[in-house]
Amino acid sequence: MYRTHNCGELRISNQHNRVTLAGWVQRSRDLGGMTFVDLRDRYGITQLVFNMESDAALCEQARKLGREDVIQIEGEVFERSSKNKNIPTGEVEVIVTKLSLLNEAKTPPFTIEAETDGGEDLRMKYRYLDLRRPPLQANLKLRHKASIETRKYLDSLDFLEIETPYLIKSTPEGARDFVVPSRMNPNQFYALPQSPQTFKQLLMVSGYDRYYQIVKCFRDEDLRADRQPEFTQIDCEMAFVDQEDILRNFEGLVRHLFREVKGVELPEFKRMDYATAMEKYGSDKPDLRFGMEFVNLNDHAKNKGFKIFDEAEVVLGICVAGGAAYSRKELDAFTNFVKRPQVGAKGMVYVKYNEDETVKSSVDKFYTEEDLKVWLQASGAKPGDALFVLSGDLNSTRKQLNELRLHVAETQGLKDKNVFVPLWVTDFPLLEWDEESERFHAMHHPFTSPKAEDIGKMESAPGEIRANAYDMVINGVEVGGGSIRIHDRELQSKMFDLLGFSKEEAQQQFGFLMGAFEYGAPPHGGIAFGFDRLCALLGGYDNIRDFIAFPKNNAGRDVMIDAPDKLDSEQLKELYIDLVEKA
Amino acid sequence: MYRTHNCGELRISNQHNRVTLAGWVQRSRDLGGMTFVDLRDRYGITQLVFNMESDAALCEQARKLGREDVIQIEGEVFERSSKNKNIPTGEVEVIVTKLSLLNEAKTPPFTIEAETDGGEDLRMKYRYLDLRRPPLQANLKLRHKASIETRKYLDSLDFLEIETPYLIKSTPEGARDFVVPSRMNPNQFYALPQSPQTFKQLLMVSGYDRYYQIVKCFRDEDLRADRQPEFTQIDCEMAFVDQEDILRNFEGLVRHLFREVKGVELPEFKRMDYATAMEKYGSDKPDLRFGMEFVNLNDHAKNKGFKIFDEAEVVLGICVAGGAAYSRKELDAFTNFVKRPQVGAKGMVYVKYNEDETVKSSVDKFYTEEDLKVWLQASGAKPGDALFVLSGDLNSTRKQLNELRLHVAETQGLKDKNVFVPLWVTDFPLLEWDEESERFHAMHHPFTSPKAEDIGKMESAPGEIRANAYDMVINGVEVGGGSIRIHDRELQSKMFDLLGFSKEEAQQQFGFLMGAFEYGAPPHGGIAFGFDRLCALLGGYDNIRDFIAFPKNNAGRDVMIDAPDKLDSEQLKELYIDLVEKA
Repeated sequence: MYRTHNCGELRISNQHNRVTLAGWVQRSRDLGGMTFVDLRDRYGITQLVFNMESDAALCEQARKLGREDVIQIEGEVFERSSKNKNIPTGEVEVIVTKLSLLNEAKTPPFTIEAETDGGEDLRMKYRYLDLRRPPLQANLKLRHKASIETRKYLDSLDFLEIETPYLIKSTPEGARDFVVPSRMNPNQFYALPQSPQTFKQLLMVSGYDRYYQIVKCFRDEDLRADRQPEFTQIDCEMAFVDQEDILRNFEGLVRHLFREVKGVELPEFKRMDYATAMEKYGSDKPDLRFGMEFVNLNDHAKNKGFKIFDEAEVVLGICVAGGAAYSRKELDAFTNFVKRPQVGAKGMVYVKYNEDETVKSSVDKFYTEEDLKVWLQASGAKPGDALFVLSGDLNSTRKQLNELRLHVAETQGLKDKNVFVPLWVTDFPLLEWDEESERFHAMHHPFTSPKAEDIGKMESAPGEIRANAYDMVINGVEVGGGSIRIHDRELQSKMFDLLGFSKEEAQQQFGFLMGAFEYGAPPHGGIAFGFDRLCALLGGYDNIRDFIAFPKNNAGRDVMIDAPDKLDSEQLKELYIDLVEKA
Repeated sequence: MYRTHNCGELRISNQHNRVTLAGWVQRSRDLGGMTFVDLRDRYGITQLVFNMESDAALCEQARKLGREDVIQIEGEVFERSSKNKNIPTGEVEVIVTKLSLLNEAKTPPFTIEAETDGGEDLRMKYRYLDLRRPPLQANLKLRHKASIETRKYLDSLDFLEIETPYLIKSTPEGARDFVVPSRMNPNQFYALPQSPQTFKQLLMVSGYDRYYQIVKCFRDEDLRADRQPEFTQIDCEMAFVDQEDILRNFEGLVRHLFREVKGVELPEFKRMDYATAMEKYGSDKPDLRFGMEFVNLNDHAKNKGFKIFDEAEVVLGICVAGGAAYSRKELDAFTNFVKRPQVGAKGMVYVKYNEDETVKSSVDKFYTEEDLKVWLQASGAKPGDALFVLSGDLNSTRKQLNELRLHVAETQGLKDKNVFVPLWVTDFPLLEWDEESERFHAMHHPFTSPKAEDIGKMESAPGEIRANAYDMVINGVEVGGGSIRIHDRELQSKMFDLLGFSKEEAQQQFGFLMGAFEYGAPPHGGIAFGFDRLCALLGGYDNIRDFIAFPKNNAGRDVMIDAPDKLDSEQLKELYIDLVEKA
């Protein structure tokens, strides 16, 4: 036995217990004839005391200890004279009688504290040391708790966790697959799943009724802060349900998680259809912690001789509370923000509604004060507010104004980490037109069902068909998304036609699913949550990497283990593949 | 809402409720003016009644229903006149007033019943239909329950489930890796993990103290009934533990699973060291539901003029209870069994100890009755028993006699599926000599620590070093295995030397782990359970495929989705690989 207690366990009730502890040296300090060592493990910190007077040799031994050394001690628990109210063990200390150095530690390349001096590259390389830091330990504990609570909730609703395969088949739809050459089937490849989509649908055909899985998925896409080549989903599917059943059940799941993991009671989930979200916020994942709904100024701003607006498809504004107080410099900063290449606007028009009810605008030259007051009125501005206005074609302007709205909210501190506004966005378009390939793509995926009332448009106006698809959005983060699926072979086949598959391609790729639909497929639907992102949201972080034990960097590399790596030629030979040099 | 109740829910207390149900037509039969339909879902079966007299059109509609059609009905719950005591819903039936056909089903290629007429190939192709059969539904429910209970137990002991990466680095040790070409890092490859071994060790270095994960692992090996290219492990690791801590905690886990999943209270876990297991049973996973311990007859059987025994390294026997009653034909069958190429013995000697205390043996010519009675006495045989004897070199004879022992037990019905005898096999050899490559291999893996008292043999007699390694064996099935790990850089480095790694290779492959050992690695150890196999054991099956929703066949193929499959040349190009034709 290496220990009788862990380092977070001893209390005043343990006074005079003989104990054995083991852990890491967090810090040590010499005070007169005493040496104090903070001993750390996952559970907490316990103060150890070595006394020069009572055992000089032992105290000398303790004075040689360095940070992060692994030690084991025996000693007796005493009440502390100066208590530390900040930690649960702060009322006691252990007077040490025996000390063993279990493993010596070199000086770590960065400090193992909540705030560290290590840069990101260094911390990624020594991830096993970074993972010792309290914030990361708290994050991985939160993740564990979130997975336990997810399973508890779904288990209570009779969902079965069923594992689906990782070695599956590559499909041309969606993102790029990671593939795995098969040694036993030369020149053939498995693909790693982007999601267990078809398998969970087959499980519904098999009658499992309610399925879930917390499962790794893979996408070979270029990476960003909130994307990893491998990521985790809470993947769910239900049979004999309509959209309302799904929304109710999974609202319940997320409500449960916020309550149990974070101690937060979520407000009622709002609902908004896709068209409204785009119209009011220019985004299918609007952050509703703050207002600033878009105002269409076309009727008021066009045909008054200001060429830029006259030639624009739309003139859209947002009302910025307190915006009249912005200085010239601050306004310039907002203009510069929208002109950044990532946003892409040509400029920004402002209209200040001063406290004295005068108006000041960057387009004073083109509009009278009365004109501008009409704008202000249309946007609900009050004295002291300002209107920020962008113009151009509909899609770009919405996108840019969405960025500006979020930026203003950031600037004004409206993104309160302790406020959560959950929202269902519904009625997504079934298809989106891809200019490059000149064909329709499935907006969600090819298995999503069209709304019954829109099925008539499948030949006449496919672009206008709305889908039984829905996203859960919290504070502007898309937490999960799903759809009611097609369960009819004919309709599925028609869908593949619309997506430009030939009959042969559809049969070769998804024949098994369409076959399954012929043997009694129930109506079904589901949802998948991005578990990494959900954890980040619960933990109050933006970057999912902080909730993944061993993440990859932006080049898809694990710099700690140095993967990917070369293979030896023998391995390549066994797999019947050759390398092609990059041109 | 597709249903107000599921098909396993209605009871006599629901009498006169108006209900809506949905499910599959299990069977239907016409009786006079009535049609009875059994409606099935995951939860049970409910009897539906259609009455020609009260609604002829509806009844006609019902008579057109075929097996596996998906329907929705509305109706009223009534008490049944002839109750079915075999099912929980057997006291009621639903008189239907409305019927909707949700999806028609073609006639399935095999019957969807507990006993089916479909062959294995057909059932693999239509796995989604096979999965509807009650035994497979029961198996996947058992698997779900086992995973829930595993997590419940480990969570209660403060284990954290932490996900480790799937895209890692290929290592030359152990089985063959599946690999994944990296598009972003041309000519480099990830490997899929054979186990999260090094990551869980790093998590101990990071101070997570108690880790587990129910996780998919991958091995590109030729397949057998109890092997799949992807399989699931309960993977665990603990810091500041010795072997005793591990055995105690995980004995607890398996005891918990048998209790909660199977309702079985396991007896005390026996302990046996590897040397004893090999000596007494010729196997490191002995089935202890029955006796038949090996008896070494060297002292009694050699040097009496029987050349075969005289030239053999060992003469080993087992005492077969009641074996004196075997006919000549039965004895021949045992002889034929040991002569099968898979067993490989040259022949078998028997000694019958008849009820009248006379002796009859196949080596009567070479030994006197007194000689043979000494053998019988040495083996503890009683009148009515027989002795089965094999001879040859030590390793082969042990292996063959182990096979024979298991075969006799099978024949005699001693493998009782309701009896469970759990066992820890300990003190495995650290290394095994590989004749082919003329070097030592790690018997468990290169991170396993030698027993402290054997460390002195690392230079002098490496083959004799025992490891802190242990396997959990239940009824002859290796359920799990693990070890206390090396946590000292020097020792780990010495281990790689012994295994024939150059310093450079060791550094290139495992530098990150040895590096981690320099920054304060705690003593640690762990275990991994084969979850598929554990579920099969809990379910009373031999084949793990029956507990995997979508297994691969013996050629590593998923015949349902037809994977693996060819890639198009564009995909290969992006990955910088070319195909090599099989010679």
